[in-house]
Amino acid sequence: MSVEPESLEALIAEFANLPGIGHKTARRLAYHLLSKPKGDVERFATSLTNAAAKVHPCPVCHAFTDLDTCNTCTSRAGAKSLCVVEKSSDILPFERSGVFKGLYFVLGGVISPLDGIGPEALHLPQLVERIKSEGIEELVLALGSSPEADSTSLMIDRMLAGVNVKRTRLARGIPMGSDLEFVDEITMLRAFEGRVSL
Amino acid sequence: MSVEPESLEALIAEFANLPGIGHKTARRLAYHLLSKPKGDVERFATSLTNAAAKVHPCPVCHAFTDLDTCNTCTSRAGAKSLCVVEKSSDILPFERSGVFKGLYFVLGGVISPLDGIGPEALHLPQLVERIKSEGIEELVLALGSSPEADSTSLMIDRMLAGVNVKRTRLARGIPMGSDLEFVDEITMLRAFEGRVSL
Repeated sequence: MSVEPESLEALIAEFANLPGIGHKTARRLAYHLLSKPKGDVERFATSLTNAAAKVHPCPVCHAFTDLDTCNTCTSRAGAKSLCVVEKSSDILPFERSGVFKGLYFVLGGVISPLDGIGPEALHLPQLVERIKSEGIEELVLALGSSPEADSTSLMIDRMLAGVNVKRTRLARGIPMGSDLEFVDEITMLRAFEGRVSL
Repeated sequence: MSVEPESLEALIAEFANLPGIGHKTARRLAYHLLSKPKGDVERFATSLTNAAAKVHPCPVCHAFTDLDTCNTCTSRAGAKSLCVVEKSSDILPFERSGVFKGLYFVLGGVISPLDGIGPEALHLPQLVERIKSEGIEELVLALGSSPEADSTSLMIDRMLAGVNVKRTRLARGIPMGSDLEFVDEITMLRAFEGRVSL
């Protein structure tokens, strides 16, 4: 016999669908919400509906926005640096650090044949078109450090053969504050290979 | 400059309000949902609204239900054992194990002066009334193992002085499958004090 009302089970199932949320956590969250005033739950539901209705990919860079064209594309129009990231949320660490003042382009993923993601699933033609039409001078490839990201970067590099644009990628090495003892082999290999003179 | 649309920020804030969900996880969940088809987000919102509208505490035992009186109170009416738990979700482990076939009563918390929870915040009078009116013969106190739970159990025990009902509480000791090496001092103390003859 199930002791849980059906509508509660449905809510638990929705939470359990989210990445990194197991069934036990999902149950805890659903019970937590139901023990709150009904208005709180309504506000949560409204913010979901609201976000789904208002937020969409920017037609120029594919980052999430609630405007016709996103803030960054509008306010930095004419910039000659373009940073390519895998997904919309990858833009945040750049903006938080304030290190980059150029434009972004969200590729929509990286090529991963095992997951059935081929080049046609990504915004590759739009990227090349944008680089050409906006006269981009430096393309920063920031697609992460997986083998799939590497081969996607390589493919972009090849697609741009003949286009006059400087291609760079983020440095790889030991992250700040990490204990050398716990650095994995690949990171150590890359940090050593990329060592710089003092 | 914030690069996140306001409605996305509002959704992140709602997720971050949930227990055990930090700001980074909340952001990950919100971005995940927005990358899904709009229908999925709508279904999530609907299940929140639905659960909030339909689920309420059972007027008899205070467990969450979508019926006038909950399943357990109805189908086990007349049972003479009553298990007192702190919150609605504490009923699930009993039902999963199938060990208890009696009635439940959700107290709504435990007495915790530091958190401003006094006896008046709990369903104590209803509990005593129910024990008397239904002729309960055994009361199983299952309020957890914190000092607050212990003193709440003690208070219930005192309130029932003169009422002819057997009072028990769950056994305390080493949980199944746990490594003795990692058992904390209090659990070990209780397990040793409660040792049984072979």
